[in-house]
Amino acid sequence: MYDNIYSEDVGSFFRSPVREIFKKVDLNAIYSFAGGYPSPDTFPLEEIKRTMAEVIDKYGSKAFQYGATQGVPELREAVAKRCGVPVERVQITSSSQQGIDVCTRVLVDPGDVILTSSPSYLGALQSFRSYRADIRGVKHSPDIEAFKQAYEGVIAQAHAEGKKIKFLYMIPDFQNPSGESLTLAEREMLVALAQKHDFLIVEDSPYRELRYEGEHIPTMYSLDPDRVIHLGSFSKIFAPGFRLGWAIAHPDILDKIYVCKQSLDLCPPIFDQYVAAEFLSSGRLDANLEKSIALYKDKRDHLLNLLAQHMPEGIRWTHPEGGLFLFLTMPEGFEAVKFYDKALDAGVAYVAGEFFHPDGSGKNTMRMNFSFMTKERMTEGVKLLASLLSSRA
Amino acid sequence: MYDNIYSEDVGSFFRSPVREIFKKVDLNAIYSFAGGYPSPDTFPLEEIKRTMAEVIDKYGSKAFQYGATQGVPELREAVAKRCGVPVERVQITSSSQQGIDVCTRVLVDPGDVILTSSPSYLGALQSFRSYRADIRGVKHSPDIEAFKQAYEGVIAQAHAEGKKIKFLYMIPDFQNPSGESLTLAEREMLVALAQKHDFLIVEDSPYRELRYEGEHIPTMYSLDPDRVIHLGSFSKIFAPGFRLGWAIAHPDILDKIYVCKQSLDLCPPIFDQYVAAEFLSSGRLDANLEKSIALYKDKRDHLLNLLAQHMPEGIRWTHPEGGLFLFLTMPEGFEAVKFYDKALDAGVAYVAGEFFHPDGSGKNTMRMNFSFMTKERMTEGVKLLASLLSSRA
Repeated sequence: MYDNIYSEDVGSFFRSPVREIFKKVDLNAIYSFAGGYPSPDTFPLEEIKRTMAEVIDKYGSKAFQYGATQGVPELREAVAKRCGVPVERVQITSSSQQGIDVCTRVLVDPGDVILTSSPSYLGALQSFRSYRADIRGVKHSPDIEAFKQAYEGVIAQAHAEGKKIKFLYMIPDFQNPSGESLTLAEREMLVALAQKHDFLIVEDSPYRELRYEGEHIPTMYSLDPDRVIHLGSFSKIFAPGFRLGWAIAHPDILDKIYVCKQSLDLCPPIFDQYVAAEFLSSGRLDANLEKSIALYKDKRDHLLNLLAQHMPEGIRWTHPEGGLFLFLTMPEGFEAVKFYDKALDAGVAYVAGEFFHPDGSGKNTMRMNFSFMTKERMTEGVKLLASLLSSRA
Repeated sequence: MYDNIYSEDVGSFFRSPVREIFKKVDLNAIYSFAGGYPSPDTFPLEEIKRTMAEVIDKYGSKAFQYGATQGVPELREAVAKRCGVPVERVQITSSSQQGIDVCTRVLVDPGDVILTSSPSYLGALQSFRSYRADIRGVKHSPDIEAFKQAYEGVIAQAHAEGKKIKFLYMIPDFQNPSGESLTLAEREMLVALAQKHDFLIVEDSPYRELRYEGEHIPTMYSLDPDRVIHLGSFSKIFAPGFRLGWAIAHPDILDKIYVCKQSLDLCPPIFDQYVAAEFLSSGRLDANLEKSIALYKDKRDHLLNLLAQHMPEGIRWTHPEGGLFLFLTMPEGFEAVKFYDKALDAGVAYVAGEFFHPDGSGKNTMRMNFSFMTKERMTEGVKLLASLLSSRA
């Protein structure tokens, strides 16, 4: 009965391997390097409780009523101020995943090209595929001229095929999954490419504020505010359970996102927005974020030390200056997807790197998260994973 | 620069006239019969505050973390129990508007036919159009055989054009905008039509529990659970600010909705779900709902009395047995859209009925809401509207 009823898009849906893991496994019963979950220790429960009571006293029934599709004015203004942009350019989204999805919806027809890094964020690839976009991934090269030429090659190829390139999707800061950041020169080069070939850039910045060393690098948005759509998220700087993010864009683009959002869900969650606005404007968010950054820096250092200490020869990993992830490259021939069942049986989880590669390459890579587990559990987890990898070799 | 960048869908987007009104007008500064806002008096602020503190104490950091795409188990189970369906058939949605949108996304390709009543819910029409569906509206007829033949005619016409009919969208209980309900015989007839011509039914039920007289009528879902997708909402029985609803469907369909939702927004708001689950399972929701029903019945009666007392000759209106709306039909030649600016200038708002008609008919109709304003303000608002209408005649 259900064979011929679905839309064509459904044929391109694919399940998030990460979300499927979480359906089957109790995260607290295994050593999980798999998810992108913030540490539960970063949620300021008592402050949240107090703020919620304050919001109810301050806003009353307004906090539980329908609200503006763009987001409540208090939160839009707080985000605009934080990001240094006019409030007219701010749309509150019901999660930054929705930001990605709605950008794709308003920009992409089936067959249109989206340029991405390779690897790139799984949830974005999932959304792009669901609209039947033609995803073209480009591997990073430390040589900026070679990096540029790699993009030029992909762009020329797409144009030769008569394809429209709609946008470049980038996570310039502490990328998911690699943990790496783009230099300012790389950002400038990519923005110049977008200007030259007239496509947009969707800049996804959920981790930007989680920097543990080095200096902040300007956003791609700041390099060309009329060409770059900037997406932000409260999930990593506050709490993911509120499902709140923001999109910053030229008013013409933002207007399309706004009208689309009317029919998607009318408006973002209202009470949650007031709580986030109070946290932001009272300075509580920044005070808490400072503590989170110290915690995550310590955890990152711990994982880097553990890997250096326990991992067998022939395995490389990235050194992220921020964010929640690092990325491992195993010897050629290693298959992280095949190895996964063995690891999970033994009680340790990661995400196989090939899921992040639009072309299915990267079979010998894996992503490890360092935000979720305690240091003690990370120690046990790395020891276990390292021993499994060693016994395999 | 932005002329040729958007997807084809964008060409079919249209702005909600209701949401546009709300952008421009302070609802509390005018007499607004326009929105579908619940009464702020129905939000149990102190109980919500207490429940929120309880949720934080009970669930701790879990209430602020990422969660399952299907919804948190506690809420899925509470909804399943309330609706008398297996929990495997329940997906929590981030608003019932999202339920409508995601059904359309997974079922409809551009050009596919969606059957609706005429008039029908604006937000649904907005979503259907955004996917470039071919919407065919059918006017209600009190003669069930004529009503059936009207649908048969539209179905035959669509088939003759080689079109696929994907689903019938219906709000059987206290419809938005008409306030009218389908009889059991009408529900049975429509389900039989869907079986005969092999299309699905999307049953949208946000108002079902707000009944002020008469007996509950079985849902269309109960008549054929494998063919009907049932959508519910917490917006009218609890509070819209949480943006929570549910979809109940055959597991095959629900699985597509689930995978789609992964890339739409990963999961519904977590904390809000726990609050709703606590409200449901503790009985607080039902206790509060009982009070809301008494309040709304009184308001409905008040509006019906006001209309009978003040409206000039030649105007008819529906007698809703529940819900939030009634629907006025003015004499032929009256244009509710044109009259609207005059009404708004004078300080009273409604929604012109033609926006609810897929074919743009119903120019002499308007929707009036009776849930939002106090009885005192309704009195003033009806007097004002009636005097404007009288002076026009």
